Amino acid sequence: MRNANRQLRLKARPEGLAGPENFEETIAPIRQPQEGEALLSTVYLSVDPAMRVWLKEDPGYVPPVEIGDIMRAGGIARVVESRIEGITAGDYVMARLGWQSHPTLRSEGMHKLDLDLGSLEDWIGPLGTTALTAWFGLREIGQIVAGETVLVSGAAGGVGQVAGQIARLEGCRVVGIAGGLEKCGFLTEELRFHDAINYKAVTDLSAAIGEACPDGVDVYFDNVGGPTLDAALGALRHKGRVVICGRISQTASPKLYGVTNTGMLIGKRARMEGFIVSDFQDRYVEARRWLSEKLKSGELKQKLHVLDGLEKAPEGLTMLFEGTSTGKLVVKV
Amino acid sequence: MRNANRQLRLKARPEGLAGPENFEETIAPIRQPQEGEALLSTVYLSVDPAMRVWLKEDPGYVPPVEIGDIMRAGGIARVVESRIEGITAGDYVMARLGWQSHPTLRSEGMHKLDLDLGSLEDWIGPLGTTALTAWFGLREIGQIVAGETVLVSGAAGGVGQVAGQIARLEGCRVVGIAGGLEKCGFLTEELRFHDAINYKAVTDLSAAIGEACPDGVDVYFDNVGGPTLDAALGALRHKGRVVICGRISQTASPKLYGVTNTGMLIGKRARMEGFIVSDFQDRYVEARRWLSEKLKSGELKQKLHVLDGLEKAPEGLTMLFEGTSTGKLVVKV
Repeated sequence: MRNANRQLRLKARPEGLAGPENFEETIAPIRQPQEGEALLSTVYLSVDPAMRVWLKEDPGYVPPVEIGDIMRAGGIARVVESRIEGITAGDYVMARLGWQSHPTLRSEGMHKLDLDLGSLEDWIGPLGTTALTAWFGLREIGQIVAGETVLVSGAAGGVGQVAGQIARLEGCRVVGIAGGLEKCGFLTEELRFHDAINYKAVTDLSAAIGEACPDGVDVYFDNVGGPTLDAALGALRHKGRVVICGRISQTASPKLYGVTNTGMLIGKRARMEGFIVSDFQDRYVEARRWLSEKLKSGELKQKLHVLDGLEKAPEGLTMLFEGTSTGKLVVKV
Repeated sequence: MRNANRQLRLKARPEGLAGPENFEETIAPIRQPQEGEALLSTVYLSVDPAMRVWLKEDPGYVPPVEIGDIMRAGGIARVVESRIEGITAGDYVMARLGWQSHPTLRSEGMHKLDLDLGSLEDWIGPLGTTALTAWFGLREIGQIVAGETVLVSGAAGGVGQVAGQIARLEGCRVVGIAGGLEKCGFLTEELRFHDAINYKAVTDLSAAIGEACPDGVDVYFDNVGGPTLDAALGALRHKGRVVICGRISQTASPKLYGVTNTGMLIGKRARMEGFIVSDFQDRYVEARRWLSEKLKSGELKQKLHVLDGLEKAPEGLTMLFEGTSTGKLVVKV
């Protein structure tokens, strides 16, 4: 197996949640890099809600992963051998690695990590795409202002935990929504959110939001969609903003939830807007500089939930949608 | 009856549509104006979808009309006697008159009409609040750009007919959605919309929008909400904008329709935003100057649907929600 590239390929499209039954392992010989390519050894793979969307026949904004394809995934790898200018053996890079142990890839989308900004764990977490999603979503779409109340759903997840902390560091009052006492404790105690709502323990989410945000919500950072979005729309203040980042409650759902409160946008003069982080890639450097500073000063924390071994990746995808992970979920290969 | 002020008061809150059964006529003596007041003789009353919202116990953004109150309504009146500086007998004013023939009102919210800009019929129509709603909604919220495709629902209504024409005059391709062949003919032939969809005659509205807007929709100007909003969200282009102006399909509905396509905002990087025209009142002069120019040049047309007599006002409210009026609905008193 020394000279082997382990890969996980899509075997069958999932109906509901995706899991081990949807993938199969294949072994291919490691391919020596040609001019403009590098051979990599995967260290971390990111497990994100968007990956479930890529498994649909028509994801909408990107081509789907086809049956038989190596599962698409971003991650961090060590360079084994390089024929790319500026990248040498021993460097660490971020790239669209896919679920494989030893990819040989072209330079497009490959980004050499500056380890002065943070460790490998920082790069897969609060310097990675997940954190950048929180940063640009809150600032560019949410246009948060100090003193405002920011509500975050999926708050103990990869994007949510960073979004809440950024908002707090920018002087906002931050309330997180998460499933379970443990996650809520993590939010208020470790990440210093001002309040947290355990949605699994409340019967009336609207009332719970009203209690936690008595003056209403200026910015709602939505990672989950569905009834949570409806409740947040109801709690929105005049000129409120809803950042539509994800909708994990709906991604694998056979029937979409219908949002009834869109009409409230009128009287509230409020706005809902979606985005994809890669639209901001020209400005990643600026965001990472800020995030790195806050990491080094200890003001920004992250929790990584690490699964050990490439074979755990499909299980990770299930965990994400069942809400059994806390923090940013990654696979260590 | 010469010295009488006829009034229509709210008798009982409507369950579904509002109509004659919800109002009762009262007669009061005409009240002489005190310092800072004027006695008016109502000429036109505007009949708008928002009026049904004001009849709810909790409209959200304005206080409700209470049982026993004169029904709230905007309109145009001739000044009979004035003790307001700058306003004299014989002037015409726009004001929140209410459903009454001879209101005596204070100067707040009273606006003297400049008949050089247009006739009384222009002022109740394309120079009035309805037209301003279209103007600010399209420009400030929709941010239309020449060459874009603009879809308008409730297109044969007061706001819709002006919205579509403004978009066309600004160089956009305009498609209207309306109920009935006659309304659609009015849109394409008289108002020169590029296309019109008769939603009553199509079984699949999404397919019909796709056919009329083969490259997708840049701006959707929504007057109706409900399933039409859902279909329009599905047809939105990259960076598309949805102007949430009204939701007449939902206003009097006992059960709100659930919008399932909000998640599409993510991949499309699209935006939905609500507004209330009065937020822009500092800029009405600018908008009216533009509208007046287009009226005088004949480029902007309007259709008034005139009901004769104050007693017809409640019926007008029903017509609006049943879709049996074409153009801007007004009551001539």
